[in-house]
Amino acid sequence: MNTKKDEAINLHKMLKGKIEIHNKVSIENIFDEENGTLGLIYTPGVAYVATAIKDNKELAYDYTSKWNNVAIICDGTRVLGLGNIGPEGALPVMEGKSVLFKILGGINAFPLCIATKEKEEIIRFVKEIEPVFGAINIEDIESPKVFDIIKRLQNEISIPVFHDDQHGTAVITLAALINSLTLLNKKIDSIKVAISGAGSAGYGIFKILKKAGCKDIIVIDSKGAIYEGREDIAGQDNGDAVGGVGRGAKSGGGDDISTKSSNSSNNTTSKYEISRNSNPRNLRGNLADVIKGADVFIGVSGRAGLLTAEMVNSMNQDAIIFALSNPDPEILPPDALNAGARIAATGRSDFPNQINNAVVFPSVLRALLDTRAKGLDEDMLVAASYAIASLVERPHLKEDYIIPKINDPRILSTVVKTLKEAIKSSQNSKIGKKRIRCGRG
Amino acid sequence: MNTKKDEAINLHKMLKGKIEIHNKVSIENIFDEENGTLGLIYTPGVAYVATAIKDNKELAYDYTSKWNNVAIICDGTRVLGLGNIGPEGALPVMEGKSVLFKILGGINAFPLCIATKEKEEIIRFVKEIEPVFGAINIEDIESPKVFDIIKRLQNEISIPVFHDDQHGTAVITLAALINSLTLLNKKIDSIKVAISGAGSAGYGIFKILKKAGCKDIIVIDSKGAIYEGREDIAGQDNGDAVGGVGRGAKSGGGDDISTKSSNSSNNTTSKYEISRNSNPRNLRGNLADVIKGADVFIGVSGRAGLLTAEMVNSMNQDAIIFALSNPDPEILPPDALNAGARIAATGRSDFPNQINNAVVFPSVLRALLDTRAKGLDEDMLVAASYAIASLVERPHLKEDYIIPKINDPRILSTVVKTLKEAIKSSQNSKIGKKRIRCGRG
Repeated sequence: MNTKKDEAINLHKMLKGKIEIHNKVSIENIFDEENGTLGLIYTPGVAYVATAIKDNKELAYDYTSKWNNVAIICDGTRVLGLGNIGPEGALPVMEGKSVLFKILGGINAFPLCIATKEKEEIIRFVKEIEPVFGAINIEDIESPKVFDIIKRLQNEISIPVFHDDQHGTAVITLAALINSLTLLNKKIDSIKVAISGAGSAGYGIFKILKKAGCKDIIVIDSKGAIYEGREDIAGQDNGDAVGGVGRGAKSGGGDDISTKSSNSSNNTTSKYEISRNSNPRNLRGNLADVIKGADVFIGVSGRAGLLTAEMVNSMNQDAIIFALSNPDPEILPPDALNAGARIAATGRSDFPNQINNAVVFPSVLRALLDTRAKGLDEDMLVAASYAIASLVERPHLKEDYIIPKINDPRILSTVVKTLKEAIKSSQNSKIGKKRIRCGRG
Repeated sequence: MNTKKDEAINLHKMLKGKIEIHNKVSIENIFDEENGTLGLIYTPGVAYVATAIKDNKELAYDYTSKWNNVAIICDGTRVLGLGNIGPEGALPVMEGKSVLFKILGGINAFPLCIATKEKEEIIRFVKEIEPVFGAINIEDIESPKVFDIIKRLQNEISIPVFHDDQHGTAVITLAALINSLTLLNKKIDSIKVAISGAGSAGYGIFKILKKAGCKDIIVIDSKGAIYEGREDIAGQDNGDAVGGVGRGAKSGGGDDISTKSSNSSNNTTSKYEISRNSNPRNLRGNLADVIKGADVFIGVSGRAGLLTAEMVNSMNQDAIIFALSNPDPEILPPDALNAGARIAATGRSDFPNQINNAVVFPSVLRALLDTRAKGLDEDMLVAASYAIASLVERPHLKEDYIIPKINDPRILSTVVKTLKEAIKSSQNSKIGKKRIRCGRG
């Protein structure tokens, strides 16, 4: 009956795992009595290598696979659109991700789907595996818990922590937006953007658009527009009554990276941050109310069909619609275009303009690994967006071709080259600062 | 100057990691717009697989690499003879181990060298990764802490926990002993054995020899012979004064697997167990005192040159000397033979009779994975010893050839075949029992 289901199950049954570990050592003469390499790669010779690393941990990057190892960390709580399916259920998804890391980035990404949902245990777990990996990829952990995990880890470990749901989605969305604006002759600092959804993706997109210069963003969650002072949105200290963080005073904008509250429960502080840094016209109401006159709709709501033709019709001229919920978008591209939009994109491969994280995570992690970056910041993410956007130029750039396809062979080298420069300049500019960070707070 | 050191360092520098993750999916048509496999191995098709596993976790063995994944867990506290060199230092060693797992057992063994030494955290860590792996290999964690870790994990997770330092060493030592006794026409139930060292290896060898029918074993640690009531050896409850465990009454011998004290601090309970189940002639004194008249010396003391020619000379006729400390054994084989021993073995590859765990761990783990065993018990380990011993028969069996070399191509199939039967029979005989266990307690 369900052919796709049968095909997927049968392929997995045949493969019995989509990844495996290979030996890089020649086995030709490994067991030779005289001069076999076994005595070098294992006891007794490996003791010299172990001792050298003990004396200088940085050598682990030179003498082991650490330089190319990424841990994919998932607790199984928010997998694809399936929700909380547990770590075993998450495993085939993360193996698929590992395949993409390998094919598109040449990276050893090991899926660690873990049997705990507890925030502190997840943080401790990642800290414990730091010796083996060059970078961490956090995947499909429920929000808002995940925001605090990312923030804490970015402060507490010395390898970069990439959160694909947040950072990957943000980078590819901004890349698509950059090219859309070029095509339609609009400027990022003068457009109005409505983002539907305030989970990992929505928060990440909000952050990167701010960083890229977007001034009028409104984020809509299930309760309507987020605005400063909305009653259900708690402050930074989230009821702890520690005082000191006045709701009345807007922060200076930007990333506010000096704010620290590593022990706060963070239940809604990502929304609190959004409330203080968006919605400059102080709009209230639901999506239909606030989308009027917007230039861009970005849907990461998980709600199929949320965006009606009427709403599209109420937007500004040359509207841009990124309906990214998977597998069923907020509006289907033909419907969006029929209702007057100029550009429509989804996360699906069966429509033009697939906005897919797989363009981002292999190349960005490759760059982070190659530079032995200790962290990740918003400037690097914006740079990655521009690098990706640069791969589609006029005359190829068209309404139905705004971003490269995931197997575009130019992505890896272009993103890596750009990011290496951004990382170098970021590290230079931040010398003396404790840590290069990215994400919440 | 130090050629071996340079060779080892240079080889590791060149390899930049001895293992890597490979993709098993054909990339031929993975990105095809029509019918590309990407939509099966990743979103959206993988959702069917994820959902199937969510509904029946056992399917993770069929649809992912779990069936063939082993985690090598090491906290870096007791690596080779180097001691506490930390997790980064341990990494090249564990990668070497992973290479052997692959070459000799076809297993994906991922090295997880973790940044914690705390017993409870290590236990929690292993429990958290259970979804991804078919078995656990504990490696180079200091004793006695490690005994409690093994025992707790064997009770608390549903995949087998193999402790190479303990179980691997025990299996290969018993295999070598079986063939030595055959050659010298001695019987295992009538020999006297002196084991020098009461760490993981000594404890594991003590256990397996008991199980194999050896009746007169004495274990000597740095304080001399272990005997019942020795003052420094605390009881099961280790000073907790809970009472109830009388030192006067010997247990009935054997494995005493009903004893449970999962929360005891276990500081010396492995020695306590030894004290109650060994030394039947109640000997006291140091190695020189108690080795007189012994048939077998097994050295896992870490003390080079501990065994003198005089001591060997004081042993029974046709003495068997396994001086296993690495890289410098308790006595060099020529010296042992000159002093009257009939058979001498070490852990080194530059003498005959190398007693090497690498004969054991790839094949035993292969069998555990193939049978989806939920645990490991002493019967399985003894069966593995006999399987390995069976590979060297007369007329090939000689004083300088008592065990197969690690690359003997018959090992894998022979051990797997034997163990499959042992596991089947163990599982049949234990139906209704909570867990098949092995190790301390």
